[in-house]
Amino acid sequence: MIYFLSDYSQGAHLKVMEALNKTNSEHTAGYGIDPHCERAAALIREMTGLGADCGVHFMTGGTSCNMTVIAAALRPYESVIAARTAHIYVHETGAVEGTGHRVTAVPGIDGKLTPELIMQAFREGEDEHTAMPRMVYLSQPTETGTLYSKQEMQTIAALCRELGLYLYVDGARLGSALCSVRNDLTLRDLARLCDAFYIGGTKNGALFGEALVIRDPKLNDHFRWMIKHQGGMLAKGRLLGVQFEALLEPQGDPAANVSGGDVSRGTGAGHDSKDEYKCLYFDIARRENYLADRLRTGLRELGCRFYCETSTNQVFPLLLVRLVEQLEENFIFHRWAPEQDGLIPVRLVTGWGTTEEEIDTLLDCVRKQL
Amino acid sequence: MIYFLSDYSQGAHLKVMEALNKTNSEHTAGYGIDPHCERAAALIREMTGLGADCGVHFMTGGTSCNMTVIAAALRPYESVIAARTAHIYVHETGAVEGTGHRVTAVPGIDGKLTPELIMQAFREGEDEHTAMPRMVYLSQPTETGTLYSKQEMQTIAALCRELGLYLYVDGARLGSALCSVRNDLTLRDLARLCDAFYIGGTKNGALFGEALVIRDPKLNDHFRWMIKHQGGMLAKGRLLGVQFEALLEPQGDPAANVSGGDVSRGTGAGHDSKDEYKCLYFDIARRENYLADRLRTGLRELGCRFYCETSTNQVFPLLLVRLVEQLEENFIFHRWAPEQDGLIPVRLVTGWGTTEEEIDTLLDCVRKQL
Amino acid sequence: MIYFLSDYSQGAHLKVMEALNKTNSEHTAGYGIDPHCERAAALIREMTGLGADCGVHFMTGGTSCNMTVIAAALRPYESVIAARTAHIYVHETGAVEGTGHRVTAVPGIDGKLTPELIMQAFREGEDEHTAMPRMVYLSQPTETGTLYSKQEMQTIAALCRELGLYLYVDGARLGSALCSVRNDLTLRDLARLCDAFYIGGTKNGALFGEALVIRDPKLNDHFRWMIKHQGGMLAKGRLLGVQFEALLEPQGDPAANVSGGDVSRGTGAGHDSKDEYKCLYFDIARRENYLADRLRTGLRELGCRFYCETSTNQVFPLLLVRLVEQLEENFIFHRWAPEQDGLIPVRLVTGWGTTEEEIDTLLDCVRKQL
Amino acid sequence: MIYFLSDYSQGAHLKVMEALNKTNSEHTAGYGIDPHCERAAALIREMTGLGADCGVHFMTGGTSCNMTVIAAALRPYESVIAARTAHIYVHETGAVEGTGHRVTAVPGIDGKLTPELIMQAFREGEDEHTAMPRMVYLSQPTETGTLYSKQEMQTIAALCRELGLYLYVDGARLGSALCSVRNDLTLRDLARLCDAFYIGGTKNGALFGEALVIRDPKLNDHFRWMIKHQGGMLAKGRLLGVQFEALLEPQGDPAANVSGGDVSRGTGAGHDSKDEYKCLYFDIARRENYLADRLRTGLRELGCRFYCETSTNQVFPLLLVRLVEQLEENFIFHRWAPEQDGLIPVRLVTGWGTTEEEIDTLLDCVRKQL
Repeated sequence: MIYFLSDYSQGAHLKVMEALNKTNSEHTAGYGIDPHCERAAALIREMTGLGADCGVHFMTGGTSCNMTVIAAALRPYESVIAARTAHIYVHETGAVEGTGHRVTAVPGIDGKLTPELIMQAFREGEDEHTAMPRMVYLSQPTETGTLYSKQEMQTIAALCRELGLYLYVDGARLGSALCSVRNDLTLRDLARLCDAFYIGGTKNGALFGEALVIRDPKLNDHFRWMIKHQGGMLAKGRLLGVQFEALLEPQGDPAANVSGGDVSRGTGAGHDSKDEYKCLYFDIARRENYLADRLRTGLRELGCRFYCETSTNQVFPLLLVRLVEQLEENFIFHRWAPEQDGLIPVRLVTGWGTTEEEIDTLLDCVRKQL
Repeated sequence: MIYFLSDYSQGAHLKVMEALNKTNSEHTAGYGIDPHCERAAALIREMTGLGADCGVHFMTGGTSCNMTVIAAALRPYESVIAARTAHIYVHETGAVEGTGHRVTAVPGIDGKLTPELIMQAFREGEDEHTAMPRMVYLSQPTETGTLYSKQEMQTIAALCRELGLYLYVDGARLGSALCSVRNDLTLRDLARLCDAFYIGGTKNGALFGEALVIRDPKLNDHFRWMIKHQGGMLAKGRLLGVQFEALLEPQGDPAANVSGGDVSRGTGAGHDSKDEYKCLYFDIARRENYLADRLRTGLRELGCRFYCETSTNQVFPLLLVRLVEQLEENFIFHRWAPEQDGLIPVRLVTGWGTTEEEIDTLLDCVRKQL
Repeated sequence: MIYFLSDYSQGAHLKVMEALNKTNSEHTAGYGIDPHCERAAALIREMTGLGADCGVHFMTGGTSCNMTVIAAALRPYESVIAARTAHIYVHETGAVEGTGHRVTAVPGIDGKLTPELIMQAFREGEDEHTAMPRMVYLSQPTETGTLYSKQEMQTIAALCRELGLYLYVDGARLGSALCSVRNDLTLRDLARLCDAFYIGGTKNGALFGEALVIRDPKLNDHFRWMIKHQGGMLAKGRLLGVQFEALLEPQGDPAANVSGGDVSRGTGAGHDSKDEYKCLYFDIARRENYLADRLRTGLRELGCRFYCETSTNQVFPLLLVRLVEQLEENFIFHRWAPEQDGLIPVRLVTGWGTTEEEIDTLLDCVRKQL
Repeated sequence: MIYFLSDYSQGAHLKVMEALNKTNSEHTAGYGIDPHCERAAALIREMTGLGADCGVHFMTGGTSCNMTVIAAALRPYESVIAARTAHIYVHETGAVEGTGHRVTAVPGIDGKLTPELIMQAFREGEDEHTAMPRMVYLSQPTETGTLYSKQEMQTIAALCRELGLYLYVDGARLGSALCSVRNDLTLRDLARLCDAFYIGGTKNGALFGEALVIRDPKLNDHFRWMIKHQGGMLAKGRLLGVQFEALLEPQGDPAANVSGGDVSRGTGAGHDSKDEYKCLYFDIARRENYLADRLRTGLRELGCRFYCETSTNQVFPLLLVRLVEQLEENFIFHRWAPEQDGLIPVRLVTGWGTTEEEIDTLLDCVRKQL
């Protein structure tokens, strides 16, 4: 079987495993206070341009990261505004509410919040009888792979500052977003515009781990207490540092990291300079995007339409029921929504381990069924 | 100034105050374990037909009651389904989420849930990645004064049982609902159909207090611990018992309780027998409804249209901006929603102390402005 | 039966009831935004010398008040230090922990915390692996009726400021403490030394209600949201204002308020000036103390020893088992702890309604049994 | 520098890393629903004798595991009894209280609970005004390396059943406990006696991970929802399965796993049969114990006394201040408590990577200083 199920169905990129193996017998202090976490944090401070003041914390997973940031930021009666399709609303089993806070879910447009939607939700916080919005939660890319443009993110950030709302960006697939051909929002833009965000590792080549970056000093205050309090502090914390070192340490030659395909293709305009993003993390993201683009183009050429337009590592073709059933004999993927008018929207995801051969095999299969 | 602001802008009905004064020097045990609470509970067990097995708890207010029931019923990952306009969603400052549970807010139709809406929300609880609906929260009447019919309530109750959902009914204005001319759902019906509900006192002649009735023994288990844990246990608990005794003790003659107006008018079909509801609580409710009907009819005769159709003690006329401004010189009431097309929806509420003269004064004022 | 069970076994002092009756038909806004609450708050601001900046909030009960203050003050990983015998530890069903915070219980000496005990608990908050103490909770008087001296309170307050801990004082029986013959800590001292405290009404002549005073502006920020979020906001909030007005409005003549006994006796040195404390609240407290003193002296003269020495409205004699059993035929009181060496410590409490005759009847009963 | 700091200062045992490397490119479903987790769970069901009915869940860390079990087991007003020195009380930053529940901390004797202490704490749960103990939390071994005997555990388990308390055992270092020469409580005994426990991986050769075993079906109900709700579900869950497979798969030859030292020494009587415990997990534990014993014996022979007597992989010698300072030049370890009478209690821990040479180097160092 060939997997297009998710970008976390395999272990870690081999260079990440190599780093874990290589450092395995080292002794370090626990809980993320070790040279590897320090080095990885320094790399992130440099990449983001935030410098020494920002907090960098390595978290084991996205839900843990989201709930900890939100619980740290909000007072008991405060809520977080999110799109109806947001991960914290639809796929985290009420973890945020478990910390005592409402997720104020608003419809969203293509999975995205708009200033109008935020304003409308904010206004519901009238007085002491209503929960009070205090944070906006976005993800870049969104659950359905759409992107906020630089302009959109700037407008939302400005509104948040005006309203006194924290802006927090879930970057579970941030690599893929930053390297998308349609993206014009750089990592430095993002870092400057929001109060906190995370650089997702789990879905971009790590065994596990997300690098949380907190620009706002008040939100960062005693954050390590928050992590431990929420049960998210890893004993052998250096495992996270080692992985992010491997992913983020600058490297000259992308070809050393990822084989097959011209990885310079599929690179968007969202770069601060041409030297930017020269590390395994973005090589993986670029390659995932490249393969997803190849898949998308191939399907389009075969006459496919799409459930939603994306430019990241997720592809959402609308396929005939019969075709879906036949593909399911050889491929593992997710039916994204119920059949409509004879077509099923499916989700095909490329991961660090996806190969060009796998893409071609799938395209061949589709071609034969037509 | 004449108040149509709310049904809790005055103290208690005089008969309730009389009972408090009369029993004031008695010594009793605290925390609701006293003869008055026992007697009031016995009256409620009789009225509802639930008998000795149900739990009856006297709570100080609606929010405290709602959050305690919900926190007692749900396991940490479970949520409660409510209409988008539900009190727990729009006017309780996230108190339910404060206990760790999501309020799954669904649009609602005229403030009401339907089996379809419940089913749709239920289906979102797919697997371990999603919060799991476990309770349906309704209010009778709803926030905008609409009513669930007996048929509607039966269908919802049947669905809840099928899906394993608790059905909980917020009865902040239950008296007014039960005595509405359009109501066909009796107290006994309600008690039989839902797992828990409360008989609101605060908005129906008490100083404060709501009588929570729990039919489901599992939900009732250690409920007094829950009340105290949530900070809702009143030291001089007998105050609640005394008030509900005064409100619910059967009485032959309604005229003894409420003056003015034919209180037998405005009584709906929702009665188990003709002797039913012969107590101060329902006399107050019937009179509130009677006065609201008089107001509604008067406004309609003057050409008014209404923001929503109600048959309880809340009236929602659409008034010209100029008229609203003029009325505001002599009357206190709530602008319910923003002006649209030159009309403002306002809310006029009758309470235990509202008089026919006050109704007529308002109608005169409107008449003069036309 | 004669009750020495508690100071909340009867309704309200007659003057409080009078005020409730007199204002009953007034219409006011709900939720504590009304002229009565404003007036009562103004009286408290004046009495405490804190002026316009402090927050005054009228709460329905002690547990609700304690949990709301603590939840407002602490970030998620922070804890509150309290004596092992503190009300929040032994009689609030884990309500504080329900808001997510540890009560760090330390042994206490005569029910009191000491700077050493606080320091020791504080030091346990070592690093991100330990809950971090952020508040000290005291009660004045303590659960067993002992008092902090001015010197003790000053030392604790100074330590709290040094360590960055909030100091919060539970004043469920504050009236009795302030009027104790042994007390040298005035209301103004207390108000100045701690960050928040409450003036207990429930146990000092009110139907219910505690007046929470918050000196620290950060703690007071959005406190009304906190109250509602915790389910503690009373719809007819003015009931609390009316009661505290009745209790605190300055009055020339104590004899007008309380009958029997020389209420000028039993007044401690803890007064800012001779005009201080001329209101019903302190007249009630003084009389309760006077009657408790009379009981204490009488029992001592009859040869009784005491479980603990108190100077407030609670008396803890050690009585022979046989005597306890005989008293229980005519009196209702609490066995405080198990029998030891043939003696049972019992608690006798005087309330606003206790009479000299009741004291004398009990003393006679004891005398006859000797 | 030589590390005796902790048993989690290195990565994973090489065989565990081997397994991770070997399975790295496999595609599996996420979140612990994969063949490796299934196989590891099957091994645990067999080892424990609990069979198909028990729940097995792989958790990322101890705090996450503890808080999730406790939050799943208790209703809001319920508390968990633990020793004052218990990990959940002293080193989890109030994570359990963060889920709303009190940790009722009792003094403990040598870090252990006794039936008397449990009974005393249980009795404090008098009525609706007190938090209600519902679970006993133990760890085997305790924080200071002491062990519950089979007899002790049986007595406590019987008491828990009698009182309706869940018994939960934290097995962060369970391997070392089971393989201690002084242990007489087998894994099967433990599994049978308690309602839930975990087999710690993090401190016994895994990169991270604890295998939680839940015997009680009610506690296991919807436990995966609980894990996700608490933020503890790992995306690439199979990493945990792979590691526990590597640790627990039966193997004939211990020498294949651990080098140096006669690992058959240091094996206690706590075995169900001679074939029991033939897997990497116990080989590691036995070797850690063997090396700790060697260290303990060596120090004793050099005249050392001990802060507390242990038989697991932690050694607590009392060393002269000067000696501690000199050792700190070449060794990393933890000062366990402040100096007293010129002696400092230090903690020396052996891990999977500790060598005999390291033990001997330390003993030599001590010898030279005498």
